[in-house]
Amino acid sequence: MKKGLISVLILSFSIPLLLFAQGRTQKPKPLPISRETQTCLECHKQYTPGIVEDWQRSLHSKTIPSSALKKAEKLRRISAQKVPPSLAGVVIGCFECHGLNPEKHKDNFEHEGFKINVIVTPKDCATCHPIEEKEYSRSKKAHALGNLLKNPVYHTLVETIISKKTIDKSQVIQRDVSELTRQETCFGCHGTEIKVSGMESIETDIGTIEVPKLTNWPNQGVGRINPDGSLGACSSCHTRHQFSIEVARKPYTCSQCHLEPDVPAWNVYKESKHGNIFDSNHMKWNFNAVPWTIGKDFQTPTCATCHNSLIVNSEGKTIAERTHDFGSRLWVRLFGLIYSHPQPIHGDTSTLKNRDGFPLPTTFTGEIAKEGLIDEKEQKKRRSVMSNICIQCHSTSWANSHFVKLENTIREVDQMTLASTLLLLEAWKSNLAEGLPHGKNPFDETIEQRWIKQWLFYANSIKYASAMTGAPDYATFKNGWWNLTENLQQMKDWIEFKKRGGSHP
Amino acid sequence: MKKGLISVLILSFSIPLLLFAQGRTQKPKPLPISRETQTCLECHKQYTPGIVEDWQRSLHSKTIPSSALKKAEKLRRISAQKVPPSLAGVVIGCFECHGLNPEKHKDNFEHEGFKINVIVTPKDCATCHPIEEKEYSRSKKAHALGNLLKNPVYHTLVETIISKKTIDKSQVIQRDVSELTRQETCFGCHGTEIKVSGMESIETDIGTIEVPKLTNWPNQGVGRINPDGSLGACSSCHTRHQFSIEVARKPYTCSQCHLEPDVPAWNVYKESKHGNIFDSNHMKWNFNAVPWTIGKDFQTPTCATCHNSLIVNSEGKTIAERTHDFGSRLWVRLFGLIYSHPQPIHGDTSTLKNRDGFPLPTTFTGEIAKEGLIDEKEQKKRRSVMSNICIQCHSTSWANSHFVKLENTIREVDQMTLASTLLLLEAWKSNLAEGLPHGKNPFDETIEQRWIKQWLFYANSIKYASAMTGAPDYATFKNGWWNLTENLQQMKDWIEFKKRGGSHP
Amino acid sequence: MKKGLISVLILSFSIPLLLFAQGRTQKPKPLPISRETQTCLECHKQYTPGIVEDWQRSLHSKTIPSSALKKAEKLRRISAQKVPPSLAGVVIGCFECHGLNPEKHKDNFEHEGFKINVIVTPKDCATCHPIEEKEYSRSKKAHALGNLLKNPVYHTLVETIISKKTIDKSQVIQRDVSELTRQETCFGCHGTEIKVSGMESIETDIGTIEVPKLTNWPNQGVGRINPDGSLGACSSCHTRHQFSIEVARKPYTCSQCHLEPDVPAWNVYKESKHGNIFDSNHMKWNFNAVPWTIGKDFQTPTCATCHNSLIVNSEGKTIAERTHDFGSRLWVRLFGLIYSHPQPIHGDTSTLKNRDGFPLPTTFTGEIAKEGLIDEKEQKKRRSVMSNICIQCHSTSWANSHFVKLENTIREVDQMTLASTLLLLEAWKSNLAEGLPHGKNPFDETIEQRWIKQWLFYANSIKYASAMTGAPDYATFKNGWWNLTENLQQMKDWIEFKKRGGSHP
Repeated sequence: MKKGLISVLILSFSIPLLLFAQGRTQKPKPLPISRETQTCLECHKQYTPGIVEDWQRSLHSKTIPSSALKKAEKLRRISAQKVPPSLAGVVIGCFECHGLNPEKHKDNFEHEGFKINVIVTPKDCATCHPIEEKEYSRSKKAHALGNLLKNPVYHTLVETIISKKTIDKSQVIQRDVSELTRQETCFGCHGTEIKVSGMESIETDIGTIEVPKLTNWPNQGVGRINPDGSLGACSSCHTRHQFSIEVARKPYTCSQCHLEPDVPAWNVYKESKHGNIFDSNHMKWNFNAVPWTIGKDFQTPTCATCHNSLIVNSEGKTIAERTHDFGSRLWVRLFGLIYSHPQPIHGDTSTLKNRDGFPLPTTFTGEIAKEGLIDEKEQKKRRSVMSNICIQCHSTSWANSHFVKLENTIREVDQMTLASTLLLLEAWKSNLAEGLPHGKNPFDETIEQRWIKQWLFYANSIKYASAMTGAPDYATFKNGWWNLTENLQQMKDWIEFKKRGGSHP
Repeated sequence: MKKGLISVLILSFSIPLLLFAQGRTQKPKPLPISRETQTCLECHKQYTPGIVEDWQRSLHSKTIPSSALKKAEKLRRISAQKVPPSLAGVVIGCFECHGLNPEKHKDNFEHEGFKINVIVTPKDCATCHPIEEKEYSRSKKAHALGNLLKNPVYHTLVETIISKKTIDKSQVIQRDVSELTRQETCFGCHGTEIKVSGMESIETDIGTIEVPKLTNWPNQGVGRINPDGSLGACSSCHTRHQFSIEVARKPYTCSQCHLEPDVPAWNVYKESKHGNIFDSNHMKWNFNAVPWTIGKDFQTPTCATCHNSLIVNSEGKTIAERTHDFGSRLWVRLFGLIYSHPQPIHGDTSTLKNRDGFPLPTTFTGEIAKEGLIDEKEQKKRRSVMSNICIQCHSTSWANSHFVKLENTIREVDQMTLASTLLLLEAWKSNLAEGLPHGKNPFDETIEQRWIKQWLFYANSIKYASAMTGAPDYATFKNGWWNLTENLQQMKDWIEFKKRGGSHP
Repeated sequence: MKKGLISVLILSFSIPLLLFAQGRTQKPKPLPISRETQTCLECHKQYTPGIVEDWQRSLHSKTIPSSALKKAEKLRRISAQKVPPSLAGVVIGCFECHGLNPEKHKDNFEHEGFKINVIVTPKDCATCHPIEEKEYSRSKKAHALGNLLKNPVYHTLVETIISKKTIDKSQVIQRDVSELTRQETCFGCHGTEIKVSGMESIETDIGTIEVPKLTNWPNQGVGRINPDGSLGACSSCHTRHQFSIEVARKPYTCSQCHLEPDVPAWNVYKESKHGNIFDSNHMKWNFNAVPWTIGKDFQTPTCATCHNSLIVNSEGKTIAERTHDFGSRLWVRLFGLIYSHPQPIHGDTSTLKNRDGFPLPTTFTGEIAKEGLIDEKEQKKRRSVMSNICIQCHSTSWANSHFVKLENTIREVDQMTLASTLLLLEAWKSNLAEGLPHGKNPFDETIEQRWIKQWLFYANSIKYASAMTGAPDYATFKNGWWNLTENLQQMKDWIEFKKRGGSHP
């Protein structure tokens, strides 16, 4: 009975127990807090207690940079070789982050005697985490806003989907798109451009105060353009004031944007063997360890394991280096635009061009762009980085067979996309729908929407399922082969029904 | 600091820890159990051990009302000022609940020498929890059964969906609906009316026994009509014999009914930043604390935080009062019927009337009913209650911008509903489908079903995503703008295909 | 540093800590490891550390069979009465499993001086777990591959869905299916046939090595045909090298294959009251206890509770015997092919025949096959096994009413399938689609696909929701009555649109 109780205790709560244990032997000396932060905390623990409590749980409140710098390189969460003297000796509190680089921040304002930035940006975080910021800045994530906005093809797709529509003579008329809806849909993940348009007075619990008036705010999209010109929001993954590595390493974070129907990484993971074991056992794992030890700290990969964390084996040997350029371990871009292709060299993909002159990495019939994509040598190198993670738990033959399957799957489902493209081209050619040949929107009629689903939803889904070694039922019936097949029939039927009524009205 | 540590400990796993602590220092005196309950337990620990074990984990088995009444008001889980003497000094066991108000219970029966009610109702729970019962009784939840059954529009929709269908001359013929299917579908959540139709003999492990024969049972729908005439089932959320506040506060409980495609609150939450942090960290939070402290007990809201729990800040100041009238903090009813509108004044919405005389809060083209909905002043008041919760963790500007977005989103997607309504009206006018103008069912033909999806699935979904500050991909591709847009095209196509074949057969 | 290490320890592993706690009183003697396994471990802890760490967490590494055999029968996880002397005295390590029955293993190969099988099969596991293997071998799971491949109806369905398609003159042409896609879709769950086609050289971290070349590998499908001729993969559920009973008992394991849209057991469970309580409380339960005590070890059932675990009540009385023949507690087969029917007598269902001579348990219009299905007496017996589990936590009336509802639901939704079949037969009769009467594929045209969805997706879904006492919204709007109803209308419309254009081209 007593043994049962102890095991319940230990199973459930390690951290509090640990602290409690320490508390009994020796009280830890409180760490120095800057005068500015002290002032912030005094008010804000009353007015935004959630933020203060969150920060108190963060490592930022429990360490000082000068101590962090003394750690062995592999154990460090800080990549600067040194930090400014003003920061080195205090915990990283409110003012240490919100007071950085005021001259670069258009969102800086006078607040209770301090010059405060509303938004802490990657450039600010780079004070202590410069490598992470540099890597991130060249990733597709950092460029997620521009990649959508500056590319006329994607831009048309976006605007077609989220525009208001009205009805006129039984036809659907596409109207404008509001900034507010942009923020809540595509740019919720891709990020918004935050501008400062002056100051405004707002009513708060401490009375009327003057604050910068920000456009397209709040937003934590990965490609956010900040008031200091920097790209991205570290808080996309290291959420809010805990800046937690644990939260970032758990797949729930990635799942906010990478989910069905269009990028069902999360859905596929959840139904894979990896996801099953994560769900069953993750509460016993250590998501805070740096470096992160295969087998000891975790028993199956989460997204972060394969894509960006610093991974070592039980003997401390590095298996994969940390990276915040999230595509840098990837060779093929599964996400078809409209077919899979080698990863782009630059995170900024708006400069890619296919043979037909469209800003796409492939043509409508699958030919891959000649420039801007990584070459075979680089592809092979990256694949071996990834494969090296697999073989820590799987035999080499197993891993090899996995990659053979993935290659085949990409080829086959891209062919299924091609089949749908041929039906679309037929519809355009027969004037049953109006698209590119007519100089019209290629994304707004029923057969065009079905074509989009073929590559954006179903083909992508199957490729993700293959890449993550799992989710066979998902790739068959939920968002996969069944849908590819049914969708083709429905495109065919649509053409048939339309043809009977003559050409496009 | 020490207090914080201890509270973290308690936060997480109070029961085992507490027992452990007690076990070492001093064995707790067993609490008095009534003679009746003792008798129940003796048999039932053999015949329904799951129930007995569940109860032993509940607070009901670990406290007595007279002790509970001694707690400070804010810490109490009991809202009565006093309880009947027969209950005050014993733990709340089987008989204390199942033996209450026998004269009002048509389901009361003689069982092994005791007069037992099969069902414990809100009126019974009100013995100790009168405020909760009173609040609940005026909520939409309490009236969920009548609101569906007594409203001819909703009733027709229900019956169209869950009726059996047969085929006659290639037409789909709608037949009757069985009570059993009603129980397993709409009324599984909305609640059934439980009647006693005499006694029946059943075979059990202790031989044949006589028990009341209940219709529409089992059911734990929120608007259940009980054999004592009361409305609701506390066990909908405070499940089974643990009566757990923890379970009720976790979003899984709400998710049983509030989920995609029609009320995707759960799906949206899961993909929001709040849901992400809940998933990552909730095992470290304290879901049993009363009152519930922002930042200390939890770091992101669950459904209960914003909608009904008693919330305080770290200094004990009340941020939001407890309520069991679940709509009472809400100003706008996102759930469009068929457009969003101010919250109804009464939980019983069957008396609402739109300008056209239909029992709906809005007309088909969006005009809001003149009576029965809360006024602007009340809307503003409620919005500030909710906003006050937001600003415990977010800046006032942040919260303000959030509400501006929500308002815009409601307006825009309601316009998308209107667009679909115009196509439906066109189909009716052209006799391509038969609906209201023909005195026929407006919910049974393909174009009518598409119209239903526009407001019931897609528009609702986007509004929920906006309200919960998240789920941008969900609101774009999964159950949102993509679907609104595609659905309009398909409605247009349907009209086009139908028109070619002439009017409705 | 010390603090970090301790926190890693505690965070990650409760069991070692517990052992550690015990270790303070008395250090456990290390268990004997065979010389062979010792050799394996020396290399593999370097080359596949994930496997070694996993195994170290397994019970296999923490016990020896001769000790396990001393336990009381009900507490044993080993069903052999005795084990070979070579295994009895050592922990069950690498060689103890991968070195078994080499003469029967076509995948056996010389590896670093040892004769190693790549794959450990149920026949190998039967050395210590013979009853589990025997039960499993007669289950539908064990025959999942043959049941799909040897049945021409199912086989045609499979090939129609996962075949490549091309477009020719606006028609969709079905092409061949690749083995690799089979592995990643249907046979990912059902299992593949693994053959050895010689040896191959592969590059590894220790240089080039020779290993067996396996076809259709890797695969952990439940009906895998192994290189020793045995059926199944214990690792389907007792995943990888932890062989965990905990993982197998959690619903995440079952959810990998039993999920929406076709077998939405997982989706329904998640939205049921049982699933809600599991989600809220499971971290406090004991998923490793053998036997598994209702109320004490868990408070609501997971899949394993009702379908196969050894369940006892608090007094140790057996409530349900353990079985690895997963259908053996089931009387009705909810999964319609195409209607529900009594469970097959044998796990091998390829021999069933309906009255029309098709290898199906029912005819297209619902008549049940005369042979090969269990009789009423057996059905009744099995239902009472299941019902006996329900009444540990629910009253007998409650359970009775539940089963009445289930029976009604099966009848009603099977009628909804029949309605769709009548529309399909009409389409075939009118030559609007080509199917069985034309000697053509009955699964490839739009109306045929809609018919498949009626029984495979929607009818199944509702039956599962009914069987698991929950998920009313799911069974109404997500994958249920709404869909059954809408789908019938769309089948009707399709016939109407097709008729206007004359017969099939």
